[in-house]
Amino acid sequence: MSDAPKKVVLAYSGGLDTSIILKWLQTEYGCEVITFTADLGQGEELEPARAKAELLGIKPENIHIVDVREEFVRDFVFPMFRANAVYEGLYLLGTSIARPLISKHLVEIAHRHGADAVAHGATGKGNDQVRFELSALALDPSIKVIAPWREWDLTSRTRLLEFAEQNQIPIAKNKRGEAPFSVDANLLHTSSEGTVLEDPAVEAPDYVAQRITAVEDAPNEPEFIEVTFEQGDAVAINGEALSPATILTRLNEYGAKHGVGLLDFVENRFVGMKSRGVYETPGGTILLEAHRGIEQITLDSGAGHLKDSIMPRYAELIYNGFWFSPEREALQALIDKTQEHVTGTVKLKLYKGSVRTVARWSDHSLYSEKHVTFEDDAGAYDQKDAAGFIRLNALRLKLIAARNARVK
Amino acid sequence: MSDAPKKVVLAYSGGLDTSIILKWLQTEYGCEVITFTADLGQGEELEPARAKAELLGIKPENIHIVDVREEFVRDFVFPMFRANAVYEGLYLLGTSIARPLISKHLVEIAHRHGADAVAHGATGKGNDQVRFELSALALDPSIKVIAPWREWDLTSRTRLLEFAEQNQIPIAKNKRGEAPFSVDANLLHTSSEGTVLEDPAVEAPDYVAQRITAVEDAPNEPEFIEVTFEQGDAVAINGEALSPATILTRLNEYGAKHGVGLLDFVENRFVGMKSRGVYETPGGTILLEAHRGIEQITLDSGAGHLKDSIMPRYAELIYNGFWFSPEREALQALIDKTQEHVTGTVKLKLYKGSVRTVARWSDHSLYSEKHVTFEDDAGAYDQKDAAGFIRLNALRLKLIAARNARVK
Amino acid sequence: MSDAPKKVVLAYSGGLDTSIILKWLQTEYGCEVITFTADLGQGEELEPARAKAELLGIKPENIHIVDVREEFVRDFVFPMFRANAVYEGLYLLGTSIARPLISKHLVEIAHRHGADAVAHGATGKGNDQVRFELSALALDPSIKVIAPWREWDLTSRTRLLEFAEQNQIPIAKNKRGEAPFSVDANLLHTSSEGTVLEDPAVEAPDYVAQRITAVEDAPNEPEFIEVTFEQGDAVAINGEALSPATILTRLNEYGAKHGVGLLDFVENRFVGMKSRGVYETPGGTILLEAHRGIEQITLDSGAGHLKDSIMPRYAELIYNGFWFSPEREALQALIDKTQEHVTGTVKLKLYKGSVRTVARWSDHSLYSEKHVTFEDDAGAYDQKDAAGFIRLNALRLKLIAARNARVK
Amino acid sequence: MSDAPKKVVLAYSGGLDTSIILKWLQTEYGCEVITFTADLGQGEELEPARAKAELLGIKPENIHIVDVREEFVRDFVFPMFRANAVYEGLYLLGTSIARPLISKHLVEIAHRHGADAVAHGATGKGNDQVRFELSALALDPSIKVIAPWREWDLTSRTRLLEFAEQNQIPIAKNKRGEAPFSVDANLLHTSSEGTVLEDPAVEAPDYVAQRITAVEDAPNEPEFIEVTFEQGDAVAINGEALSPATILTRLNEYGAKHGVGLLDFVENRFVGMKSRGVYETPGGTILLEAHRGIEQITLDSGAGHLKDSIMPRYAELIYNGFWFSPEREALQALIDKTQEHVTGTVKLKLYKGSVRTVARWSDHSLYSEKHVTFEDDAGAYDQKDAAGFIRLNALRLKLIAARNARVK
Repeated sequence: MSDAPKKVVLAYSGGLDTSIILKWLQTEYGCEVITFTADLGQGEELEPARAKAELLGIKPENIHIVDVREEFVRDFVFPMFRANAVYEGLYLLGTSIARPLISKHLVEIAHRHGADAVAHGATGKGNDQVRFELSALALDPSIKVIAPWREWDLTSRTRLLEFAEQNQIPIAKNKRGEAPFSVDANLLHTSSEGTVLEDPAVEAPDYVAQRITAVEDAPNEPEFIEVTFEQGDAVAINGEALSPATILTRLNEYGAKHGVGLLDFVENRFVGMKSRGVYETPGGTILLEAHRGIEQITLDSGAGHLKDSIMPRYAELIYNGFWFSPEREALQALIDKTQEHVTGTVKLKLYKGSVRTVARWSDHSLYSEKHVTFEDDAGAYDQKDAAGFIRLNALRLKLIAARNARVK
Repeated sequence: MSDAPKKVVLAYSGGLDTSIILKWLQTEYGCEVITFTADLGQGEELEPARAKAELLGIKPENIHIVDVREEFVRDFVFPMFRANAVYEGLYLLGTSIARPLISKHLVEIAHRHGADAVAHGATGKGNDQVRFELSALALDPSIKVIAPWREWDLTSRTRLLEFAEQNQIPIAKNKRGEAPFSVDANLLHTSSEGTVLEDPAVEAPDYVAQRITAVEDAPNEPEFIEVTFEQGDAVAINGEALSPATILTRLNEYGAKHGVGLLDFVENRFVGMKSRGVYETPGGTILLEAHRGIEQITLDSGAGHLKDSIMPRYAELIYNGFWFSPEREALQALIDKTQEHVTGTVKLKLYKGSVRTVARWSDHSLYSEKHVTFEDDAGAYDQKDAAGFIRLNALRLKLIAARNARVK
Repeated sequence: MSDAPKKVVLAYSGGLDTSIILKWLQTEYGCEVITFTADLGQGEELEPARAKAELLGIKPENIHIVDVREEFVRDFVFPMFRANAVYEGLYLLGTSIARPLISKHLVEIAHRHGADAVAHGATGKGNDQVRFELSALALDPSIKVIAPWREWDLTSRTRLLEFAEQNQIPIAKNKRGEAPFSVDANLLHTSSEGTVLEDPAVEAPDYVAQRITAVEDAPNEPEFIEVTFEQGDAVAINGEALSPATILTRLNEYGAKHGVGLLDFVENRFVGMKSRGVYETPGGTILLEAHRGIEQITLDSGAGHLKDSIMPRYAELIYNGFWFSPEREALQALIDKTQEHVTGTVKLKLYKGSVRTVARWSDHSLYSEKHVTFEDDAGAYDQKDAAGFIRLNALRLKLIAARNARVK
Repeated sequence: MSDAPKKVVLAYSGGLDTSIILKWLQTEYGCEVITFTADLGQGEELEPARAKAELLGIKPENIHIVDVREEFVRDFVFPMFRANAVYEGLYLLGTSIARPLISKHLVEIAHRHGADAVAHGATGKGNDQVRFELSALALDPSIKVIAPWREWDLTSRTRLLEFAEQNQIPIAKNKRGEAPFSVDANLLHTSSEGTVLEDPAVEAPDYVAQRITAVEDAPNEPEFIEVTFEQGDAVAINGEALSPATILTRLNEYGAKHGVGLLDFVENRFVGMKSRGVYETPGGTILLEAHRGIEQITLDSGAGHLKDSIMPRYAELIYNGFWFSPEREALQALIDKTQEHVTGTVKLKLYKGSVRTVARWSDHSLYSEKHVTFEDDAGAYDQKDAAGFIRLNALRLKLIAARNARVK
């Protein structure tokens, strides 16, 4: 097969499925495999992935285990949160935003090694295949992308395990049976899908949510925290300046402790079907509330309403895998332009599953007590101006009403 | 003054301020005053308003006290909730949506009585004046609108009370001092603004939120309810068919009990300034979550994303007072068209300030377990299709990448 | 092949390509073929298609030749023109809007005959395949769609002609050589693509535009016509009431005579590539100008600007083939709602390639000379109102300027 | 009057009306007047304005006559054309875009002279007052703005002329009678409004259009020109590199010669009424067509459709006077981001009132003949990919159709 890849960079988790893919690539194409394992804050040890890759015959220099947490939050999560991006009203895009980062590294490693292909372990039914592949091809239009789940015939669990056994791939005990559901995790969120979650009319079992404390078990006392922003990005918690990834890590701790950020959701996949997931986004949920809180006093209505109006499109682009696209970048330019003065501090109350802004202050505030007061405003605002304002706003409505009466 | 009104319909609450306005209209213009007092579900006895109006010299046939709760929910609140309307990310428009209803009645009563003017008690700094007046003029372009707060010289509390005393207007004890804040209430929400709330950096005192139980005092056990929708409107709770106003009343009870729907918010007023309010919307917050829940399975992504994209504009129109405008009506036509199959039931969990969808089902569901399953789907979906789908979606991105590499 | 179609309805033009497809369907699948030939106003005799189909063995009762011109204009062209739909700033969607109509008839005929498949002659590179197939599947999700150009191996002109000869399909003389370009025509437009047009840097030869008189040869005298609208649709020309298709036919005559409606255009196809076409839309270009002209006096800015803002999305949906989708239908509901008063008459000047509105009048006009006059307006408008209007519109800009100065 | 201005910068044309304003400011407020006269390319001698100002008692150092043509085109016209901005489908915003530039200079001169106010000669019915004042206040929130037309009692032509005579203001002969219409001109356009144009049902007399040759008198031979763009801005004509203002001047000459750019238009003013104008925009009409032409091959559909979708809002902002607003600036950031590769050359045909792109080429082109060709494409594009693409795009439509059939 002349079109067969010679050298492939595989997004490798160290788990059973990507280990099978690794072996399948070697077997099917006889190609050299390079592994990339990213620490995205998923909360797992990654060194076992090195040992396992070596066991499967990968040369040490072909094994890449990289801590990308700061890059992830700084270059992907934070820009997205500047937009208050929410997909279909509720979903904070925790999986979507990680995929382009992984593809970026796959392509960069491919270039360093002179590899001609990248491979991923996403299935042919989901969004992740689209996100991986659109990102990779936007960064290198000549790279091959291999999606074994769309190609091979290992379409049942039984066949997969047989293949693993035939190829001496170690199988953890709990992987022998059907997993109760499928999990993806990173610093921003943990998602669960499939099997016990497949019927949206049936409540998710309690054990699905593993990251966030059940609200019933959360502390009985509220906790207050202060988040400080500079130009739209969180930079400190309770006055302590922190790196992007550290901020999100801390917010995750606060959120998880107080049961914040659990979502049971049915969404529209880009590939045309609906799916149901349970999403845990403890820190992200706090961050969104805090960002909205600081925008309330630092962003004017013109910029704010403009942002609101393009947000659904921006969120859809990220969900659909178009992070590396001209339109996402143009929207980002718009969003970033609005954040120049989004600087200040928000005080939040965390309690039993909810997070609420309770106060906010900023040197960049546009809030004018002088104008809004019910008390004497010393001439800051002449109420008579409102009469003219209303009359001119009403003029077209009056002309319409007169017309409609005339032609009735 | 030839331009002076002869007969005025006043939006009359029975409180001190609108009583002063009533007397001022009589004094200033020598005009006949007709009162309109609406039961919007604000939770106050309205008959005292009749007695007070009579005391101030209003003829019995000129006093109108009307229960508009069903009309309010059926014709204003429910159409708005079909859109999932939220202003500036968080505010459920509880005050905004009541104003056009009041203006509609003022104008209708004016027509019945041959009155040439309507009057309201909103100040010249807020949004309500705009909402009242745009609505009235859109319904009758020739009607006069009188806004005493923009005209008179009773600009301090002291002058107001003097005027009241001079005119034998009874003053309740607690009205002598400055109110700690200003309150508006109806079936959808209670808002509080002003004085102790004026500094957005200072937390609202606990006593501000009067309608909703403090989360700390809410029950320690979650409660589950089921809300059923037909064509986008809630029609039953826990299987019991109920009228629109009854549904909202019940949801308010559930929400208030569990501390759901409290918002501390800084918003952009249409008249150009920012203001801070505390909003309590117990039933509305549940209704929004439930409506999103049922849309998740009954609305496809095309219609859903379209709705999301125009929602901010729709919410802005309502906030700014353009309910009776061609553009709001055109958007409503779009929204209502999408709701034809938004029929089914949502199960919600209420607990300590939060409301979450936990299950949803519908005969109109678009969710297809057959397509989404990780298990064998018996040919419902060919994963190989995804390869072509991705390749064509990637084509323009590849052409861009090739171009950018070429011209660099 | 158990999946093979048993009975297929083919969109049949009577030309060489669809004749080959007809024979190929019979040969490849051994299936019964039913032909559908639509008179869309393409200006060709259709009865020869009947003879040719019979020659190729189609039973008389399986041959459908239908005049769909009125349906085309009334149910597809006119609704689209209510939106002033223009794709990528310039293209009037003449091909796009015809495809869903054809699919609708294919599916209806399939149901009448108990056929299990439909087939079309569009290639795998263009938009038409998408439009045909999305429309068909939206109307009948279980129907099979056969696109021979994506399946067969007749991928060169030589192979095609061989197949035709082997199967006794008559080949017109001029079809033996390469066509100089590909043409599609209907009552709304004629498009030309391919071969001599493939390089967008090279001007289209004069002979490409066949429908519209060259501007240099158009009359040296301008001509004026009046088009009358009711609720957004053209209903009369120069005072003569006419059916939808007759109106478009007449406008085509006027436009063609005066060289109106020629476009040389590079567009973005849905399948990801750019293509260049020459479009002739004589009547449609006049209709668009006329519709804008009547909207100028009958539509207010609220509805008008809303329409303008959603138009690009509406046009994109039609271009991409989503006529039969919930989002197109919801947008149509919005658009139609705005057209209730778009009634009146527009006078247009046609001359040497251009069409311009020169006057317009309507009983439904919102234009108020009284308000706009530079002369004394007898109190219709108080210029002092503008001061308040401007001051409140400026308020947020002043607060921003003060803030920016403060933090600099 | 403590609030009276002490020193005022007046936008001064040298004509009768602004001369009267000049004198009125001196008389009414006893304030010092500074004049600003801008050469915006309106095609009039400006030195007479100096003489006239001196005659009216303005000190030489208080007279500012500035050639702002390059700034106008570079910083205002070109950024706007990057967006293909068109108001209400047809108007190229020629007056709107000049106003913020004038306000910017008024404020800068005020700061240099320590003036506390600016003044303009726009009436209280139009858009220009809004544009002048929003711009001035956005640049200096503490500046006073004086709009004599909204304040004085010189509300009839007779009163104006009396005032002029009383104050020894020279009156040109033709100014004694009523002007047949009101004219505004700059390098981008000439607009005419009022009197003979006030009835939109009556055709504009031929003498209204003064700048553009009547199409009947335009050359009988077409002319071809080439316009070259870099990053969205025109930089050369027929290969000759030119400054922004020179480019627009040349395009004006081409357009005027060939009768290009005449528009008879009824528009919605921001202040709520409709008005009718005749606009001549010869060079701008060519520039818009050329810019669209070069975007056709250099902009991909993602960025292009995004631009199209926000354009109406962008145009509305400029029309309404919000050039110096956060939302216009944020939209500009989006637009400018899309223009990075809008570089190349467009060939246009000018003839008898029309301008058409006939060819375009660019090193930055995204057009791929290889992909689009009807001929053998050597594997650039696999037509079978389209099947998967269509099937996944159809999936949700099929699920909808199945649902609708089920619940019917």
